[in-house]
Amino acid sequence: MTILKAVLIHDIARALVLAAAAFLVVLVAEGWWIRLARAYKLGKRIRVDGPQSHMVKMGTPTMGGTVIVGAIVALTILFNLVDRWSILLPIGVMVSFGILGVFDDWKSLTGSKSPTHGFTVRHKFLLMLIIAFVASLVLYLPAPFGLNHSGIVRIPFIGIINVGPLFIPLATLLIVGTANAVNLTDGLDSLAGWNLTLAFGAYGIMTFLSAPRLTNLMVFSLTVVGSCAAFLWYNAHPAQVFMGDTGALALGAGLAIVALQSQQWLLLPIVGIIFVLEAVSVIIQTSYFKWTRYRSGEGKRIFKMAPLHHHFEKSGWSEIQVTQRFTLIGAMAAMIGVSMALTFAANGDLSVSTMPITGPQW
Amino acid sequence: MTILKAVLIHDIARALVLAAAAFLVVLVAEGWWIRLARAYKLGKRIRVDGPQSHMVKMGTPTMGGTVIVGAIVALTILFNLVDRWSILLPIGVMVSFGILGVFDDWKSLTGSKSPTHGFTVRHKFLLMLIIAFVASLVLYLPAPFGLNHSGIVRIPFIGIINVGPLFIPLATLLIVGTANAVNLTDGLDSLAGWNLTLAFGAYGIMTFLSAPRLTNLMVFSLTVVGSCAAFLWYNAHPAQVFMGDTGALALGAGLAIVALQSQQWLLLPIVGIIFVLEAVSVIIQTSYFKWTRYRSGEGKRIFKMAPLHHHFEKSGWSEIQVTQRFTLIGAMAAMIGVSMALTFAANGDLSVSTMPITGPQW
Repeated sequence: MTILKAVLIHDIARALVLAAAAFLVVLVAEGWWIRLARAYKLGKRIRVDGPQSHMVKMGTPTMGGTVIVGAIVALTILFNLVDRWSILLPIGVMVSFGILGVFDDWKSLTGSKSPTHGFTVRHKFLLMLIIAFVASLVLYLPAPFGLNHSGIVRIPFIGIINVGPLFIPLATLLIVGTANAVNLTDGLDSLAGWNLTLAFGAYGIMTFLSAPRLTNLMVFSLTVVGSCAAFLWYNAHPAQVFMGDTGALALGAGLAIVALQSQQWLLLPIVGIIFVLEAVSVIIQTSYFKWTRYRSGEGKRIFKMAPLHHHFEKSGWSEIQVTQRFTLIGAMAAMIGVSMALTFAANGDLSVSTMPITGPQW
Repeated sequence: MTILKAVLIHDIARALVLAAAAFLVVLVAEGWWIRLARAYKLGKRIRVDGPQSHMVKMGTPTMGGTVIVGAIVALTILFNLVDRWSILLPIGVMVSFGILGVFDDWKSLTGSKSPTHGFTVRHKFLLMLIIAFVASLVLYLPAPFGLNHSGIVRIPFIGIINVGPLFIPLATLLIVGTANAVNLTDGLDSLAGWNLTLAFGAYGIMTFLSAPRLTNLMVFSLTVVGSCAAFLWYNAHPAQVFMGDTGALALGAGLAIVALQSQQWLLLPIVGIIFVLEAVSVIIQTSYFKWTRYRSGEGKRIFKMAPLHHHFEKSGWSEIQVTQRFTLIGAMAAMIGVSMALTFAANGDLSVSTMPITGPQW
């Protein structure tokens, strides 16, 4: 107990110090990025399909996500890598998805409408699927090929079950889905930022409760929390910078990997409820429109506008009210997710751990 | 270990369920309150000393704090009172300070400028001091007169020291000071609400780390977190309701009591850094003004406007930027407070606990 506690406290302290460090690093670096982007007039050409009131966002620097991801990668390599090499998985996936996002952001920066670089939406989606598939394979396969998670998923109140090779398509979908859901959510100042902070915060606590098995993921989650919090400094309405697809895709995919690697991915739709609702609203809106157009020749809509946050804006909520209320729902959902994860701890997660306290944590 | 863990998980579950319950109760009840206040045209006459842009807040219902405090008291009496009677102290202090706040709010509602009800600022301050003094005495005195805390304070990295009877004036000051600091902070939409949520959240975690000694305080803190979160739903800019002095004084005093009762009150100035900065800015501004007027005949100011949030507004930050940035500072400070509290856990707080796991928790 005493040794366990000492190790835990050591790791919590490391996690909190890294969160504070990430906060400071991003606070400084994102400020530089904004000045640089302004100097070179790298402002975002706003999506033309948003509400009219959003036209003021024209010209705001984007790709702020590069700084967030850069800080997370740098701090993790420096302080959370040696002897805990499995953290290379979320890092690798984040960087890959971030690079895919850079292409999109670059297009919006230059205002180009052509699928530049010979790089279409279809190509991008295919690349996402491939990266996600490889990541899922790495999680599934036994050592030395992978992290030997098999198809394990922890179910609240029930326990551990193994879904076998079915894990691979499920995980692939979860990664690509989360990345794109976060990207859809990223339509109002600070909305994606707050909800990402909360979701990673929740997984920080959930992995803490499974310590010492998941201490590297706990430390990683809190590094993301600190980075996102500092980004929110500049993303406060009216935003001085957007995270862009770079940030949204990278952080979304990273969140899915943390959920998968902690084996608590069944709770991701709860913890990331806002991302789910936003994505589902788009799916419902477009499906219903196509279906009614097919049936009656005229397409109808269920929401005043999709994704969901635009629906509430059109219904009379202020942009701040939408963001704050969605964030509060996200906070309550994160809390519910954490309390469900407590049942894993109650089932003696600590005692069944077969991992050594020190040494490689695959 | 197993019994301890089972008890802990039972209490965490209770805390999280109560937080969710508080969220729902306040969400419904505050909505009623707003409709009631609008029906009876109970709008706030805005402070004439705020920035011009705040004139739009005229007529917004206030005293939303009554609902917050009411929900906390009701849920605590129902689910967190029996066998843990010491929770009557924060409840009693909150209600007392809340009643004092009601007088102020009522004045601002009716727009009366006379010190109505024969109740001046001086009287109010004296009453606050008396209530705080009695609460400090209850904490200090041995059973059966009090909670037998003596003058104990836990100092990070050092341990437990006993400041003796000096505790009583210190605690009195801390209670009155925190209540008024929160009241000063309550000048922008959601600013006090977010920072109170974070501060109570931090004490929720800090008391969790000292479990099982402080489980009732952990549950209480999370009840407050849920209530404040739901209040923020309606307090999002542009606010539909203000908490008023009722809420600010009650929740501020309650925060101080939780800090004192957990014996971790030395961390309160860190966890509540925003409240400290706001109060200090007012003290500096008025002292410097009086001093320069005494020296040169002309009063000078250090800040463009006090409290601090108005200074940044006048410096060009949007109201949302001030709120969000102050909230992020509060979040980082809360994290630092929690990591300092970890040293209490490291020093074997669990093992030295002399409290029985079940039964009365004085």
